[in-house]
Order: sequence, then C-alpha cells, then structure tokens
Amino acid sequence: MVRLKEVAALAGVHPATASRALNPQTAPKVKAATLERVKAAALELDYRVNTQAANLRKKRSGLIGVVMRDFTNMMLPIMFKGIEDRLRKSGYVALLGTTYADADRKRDLYRTFMDRRVDGMIVTYADRIDEDLERVRSARVPSVLINRSTLSGGESRVLPDIAIAMTQIVDHLAGFGHTEFGYIAGPENSAMSDRKSEAFRAAIGRHELHVGEERMVRPVLATDDEGERIALRLLTQHPELTALVCSNDLLAIGALRAAAKLGLGCPKDISVSGFNDIPFLDRIEPPLTTASIPHYEMGYAAAERLVREIAGERDLESEIVFPSSIVVRRSTGPVRA
Amino acid sequence: MVRLKEVAALAGVHPATASRALNPQTAPKVKAATLERVKAAALELDYRVNTQAANLRKKRSGLIGVVMRDFTNMMLPIMFKGIEDRLRKSGYVALLGTTYADADRKRDLYRTFMDRRVDGMIVTYADRIDEDLERVRSARVPSVLINRSTLSGGESRVLPDIAIAMTQIVDHLAGFGHTEFGYIAGPENSAMSDRKSEAFRAAIGRHELHVGEERMVRPVLATDDEGERIALRLLTQHPELTALVCSNDLLAIGALRAAAKLGLGCPKDISVSGFNDIPFLDRIEPPLTTASIPHYEMGYAAAERLVREIAGERDLESEIVFPSSIVVRRSTGPVRA
Repeated sequence: MVRLKEVAALAGVHPATASRALNPQTAPKVKAATLERVKAAALELDYRVNTQAANLRKKRSGLIGVVMRDFTNMMLPIMFKGIEDRLRKSGYVALLGTTYADADRKRDLYRTFMDRRVDGMIVTYADRIDEDLERVRSARVPSVLINRSTLSGGESRVLPDIAIAMTQIVDHLAGFGHTEFGYIAGPENSAMSDRKSEAFRAAIGRHELHVGEERMVRPVLATDDEGERIALRLLTQHPELTALVCSNDLLAIGALRAAAKLGLGCPKDISVSGFNDIPFLDRIEPPLTTASIPHYEMGYAAAERLVREIAGERDLESEIVFPSSIVVRRSTGPVRA
Repeated sequence: MVRLKEVAALAGVHPATASRALNPQTAPKVKAATLERVKAAALELDYRVNTQAANLRKKRSGLIGVVMRDFTNMMLPIMFKGIEDRLRKSGYVALLGTTYADADRKRDLYRTFMDRRVDGMIVTYADRIDEDLERVRSARVPSVLINRSTLSGGESRVLPDIAIAMTQIVDHLAGFGHTEFGYIAGPENSAMSDRKSEAFRAAIGRHELHVGEERMVRPVLATDDEGERIALRLLTQHPELTALVCSNDLLAIGALRAAAKLGLGCPKDISVSGFNDIPFLDRIEPPLTTASIPHYEMGYAAAERLVREIAGERDLESEIVFPSSIVVRRSTGPVRA
C-alpha cells in the first residue's frame, strides 16, 4: 500500500495539504496548481484512499441511496444525471435501486440502503403513506422526494408546478372547442397523482365543464402498456370523448397506440396530451403535446437540498417548485365536427 | 441499537440462524417459514445490520461499481435493471456513475469506485486502450464489459452478435437495390466501434460493393445531435447516397432529422437504419429499421459472470455472445429511381 506521505513527498507538499487535496469536500480550498501536483502524484503512485475505513471513523458512509420506480421512464436517467453532478461536487456517490412498483422489492431496497448507512436518500417514488420512507425519517436519515409528495407531508420535496401546466393543457384543448374530456391519472396510491388529478379537475372547472369519475382512470404503473389498456377501454365505453389528457407521456404514447387500433385519427378524432416531455416526443407520430418539466434541474436541486441538510444547515425550505409549461405539438387539435 | 440476539429471541430461533436469515448470501439456505419469522422480527424491532462494519471485517464492500457513458441512451436503464436484478440475488448493491465522454470525469469515477473498494465493476464503455480499466485489473478487481471490448482483450465481456445483425441489415438494403451506402460509425476510440465498422465493411464486401473512408464517419458521442450533424454533412457532400447505415439508434434518429431538413423523404429518397432497438422506435416517424439486442439479458449475464468471478469460480468464459437480429420497420425501402 502506498501511503499518503509518499504522495505528499512526491508532490512536494505537507501531508496535511495532500490530504486536503484528495478529499473532494476540502479540495476546492486547495490552490489549483497544488491540487494538480497532488493528483498527478497520487495517480503516478496509484495511491488509494480507504474511503470505507475513513468513513467508518467519521460515522458517515459518503453514500446516497437513490430510489427510482420505473427507470425505463426516460426522464429518470436525465434526473439522475442532475443528482449525480451535484453529489460528485461534495464527494458523495449514488447507490441506485429500482422498485418497479413491487412492495417487497421496495422494502428490501430501503432496508439495504439503511443497512449500508447511507447518509441520505433521494426518492422519485413514494406511496401516499409511505412506511419505508417513515422508517428513514424516524432513523433521522435526511431524504428528499423528487416529483412526489406524501400525505404526511413531513418530507422535503422538489416538484414541478403542476397547476399551471395542467391549466395550460386544459385551456389549450378547451380553446379548440373540446368539452368531452377523459383523464388517465397517475398511478394508484400516490399523493402526486392526487395532486395532478385535482389540478386537472380545477382546470376543467374553470371552463364550467365536468368530468365524472368514470372518465378518470388510474393505472397501476405509469407505462405505455397501461396507457394503451386504459385508453382502449375509455374510448370504447365513452365514444363521445374528443380529448384525452394523460398524467404522463408514457401513458399518452399508449393512448396514441389505442386510438390507432380503434381506427381513430389523432388529432382529427381524438386529441391526446402527455406530461413531463421525455426525449424524442417530437419524433413520434403525431408529435405529442405535453408539459415540459426541468428534469436535470430538479435532480440537481434535490441533491443540493440533501447535501445541505446533511452538512447541518437549518431552515432549509421543505418544498422547491420548478416552473412547468405546455409544449404544443400535433397530437392536439380542433374538436371533430 | 437493537442487537441480533433480540431479533433471534423474538423470532424464537438461535442467533446463528437469525444471522444466516438476514444475510442475502446465506438466506436461501434457511427454511422459508423461519426466514419469514426472522424477517418479521427484524422489521418489528427495526433491526439494522451494520453492513459497512461487517464488510470491513470481511474485506469486502458488497458494492459493485457500474459505469455508464451516456445514460440518456434508453437501452442503458434496461441493461441496468438486468444488472440490478442479478446483483440483488447475491446481496450486492450497485454504485452507479456516468462519464458522458469526459476523460477527467471518467478517471475520477474509477478512482472513487476503487477508493470505495468495490468488489467488482460492470462497464458499458471502454476506450480502445483503457488506462482506467487497466488500473482496475492490475488491482485485481474483477470487471465485466457489456457491449464493449478493448484492444488488450484481457477483460470479460458480454457482447451482441454484431456480424450477423450487420449482415442482415446490409443484405436487407442490398435486396432493395441499394448500392450507394454511407455509414455513421460508433464513437471514436472504441474497439467496439471498430468491430462494428469491420462487420459493416465485411457485409458490404459480400455484395461486391465498396464504401470509401469518406463515407464512413465517426462521431465523438453516439447521440442524436451528432447523428444529425454528420448526416447533414454526408448527405450534402454525397448526394448519390441512398442508404445510411447507423451504428446506433440515436445516431439514426438524428439522421432522420437531417434528411427531413434537407427535404429528403425516408425511405423514398434515403433509407436509414439504426442499431440496438431502443424503446419506442416503432412510434417514431418513420418507424426505424434496426438490430435488436437483448439489453436486459446482457445486463443480467454480465452481473452473473461478475458475481461468479468474485465468488472465486475459475475457468469462466471470457466472452459471452448474445444473438442479435434485424427488426424491419418503415425507414428502409426500395432504392429511388
């Protein structure tokens, strides 16, 4: 094993300086030229910090648990990049785990992360009342939710401004003369889905319209297959529908597929909108009208919030809201005659 | 802190049994009913294993470093699920990091993972001669490459059968009468890109055709923006081209955008093919002809290979090849008159 003082000797600096240079949290305080010299020496000697032992002494792991639900939703990898970019700056590393709406898998994942003594958690899915998250909180491990909230509301969260985006989508469709709306909601058992449904209802109410419960359907997972299944049923049972608002882009992609299967033209017979603006929606046919939310920035902000809380900062805001707004493409148009 | 013997007492088992039940690597040997009892007791008492301390004693971290290059390529999250599913079974957790073709970022990431004493690495990007990976090897940390190889060739790797897929794509296009081909290769400095280019050249050769170097272009990153930039140049400088074979789907999506900007119909004026079959290519316009590779299975197999090597198994194969085959959609068609 190469030792720190050998690195310091090669770089021509005091061992304490070498130590500061090799610790990501103190490195920014070291002069750039010195930093480069120490890093080059460490590389040349193949010096490795035993982070595991060092962290155990400091009673921190330097690990952040990141929980994703359905990682194949393309906005999550972008969010993850924001998270990772911010964590790196403070020397944290992300443990990533996915749950795919499996309660046992989710419980195991939280347990694993807690067993690993993560210093904090970033979570992109939570149940309305989330027992796993409650355990994290009662263990006093800081956590931040992205794009989610819980009924208990005790968490820190980073959210898009749903109300404005949903109002813009409904106004846009009402402006095209639509009055017969259907809504494919967010997944069951999610307080964020509730918020979106409320935002949709409020937006509809502003036009003195009403959408009955039978036209507002909740999927188990927000996937394209679920969107197709639900849209097939909605469009068959309610042939009067001319606008289908979806709480997520994957659901909307499934709805487009359902419309095509039923021989309905989009937007000629049915207008469809999504939510989130995942990549390549401009390339699908028809290009999807949706609400854009800043995925990267939300991930970055959540990590920033978490790192500050771990560092002991007080009086941090519990909710950070990012703007979101409609992106009009060709999947929405005038109501059919 | 709740102790193991309290969990054992509540579950009515010997502490050694409780210990086996709570260790993912020995749990499969415990009777199902006993396992359930111990898990329920651990949950009720909120018992947490100090994995960090336990691993330090065993000189293992239980962590696997996963390196991705451009995580916004939608096949990678699917691969990651395969990796994660297999790692979970053996009680490993994934540290995930991305490099985005930034050499400093890549070096830092490898350093961080080595400092964390990962038990192994799974890597979805490697340079032709990869110094970071060489350091991992010389430290005797097992590693597996997915969809990549290096010139040194000392690594374990999981690969798709490129030669067959590329032959099928070129045969398909030649069957439509195409003779004027362009090729958008994989990123610079990648031995996998070299393999794909060779496979393309060999497939072209079988039809007694030739594609000059000036029609085979390498991007820096395999992104849609790079694909668009390169296709704009190729199609402008070589108006005789009627078929554009792309080494990756994102490049092909960019090429479709370039064709549209130049007023070229696809496939009327130019046929375009991709590689990998990322999600939703059937929904874009025109739906993209590509080669399908089993992302999930490749991730799972890489993790399986790694876990077995860490467990000390010998004589493991160094290359696992998965079948890949053409998926014909509407972006390819008869050569223009």
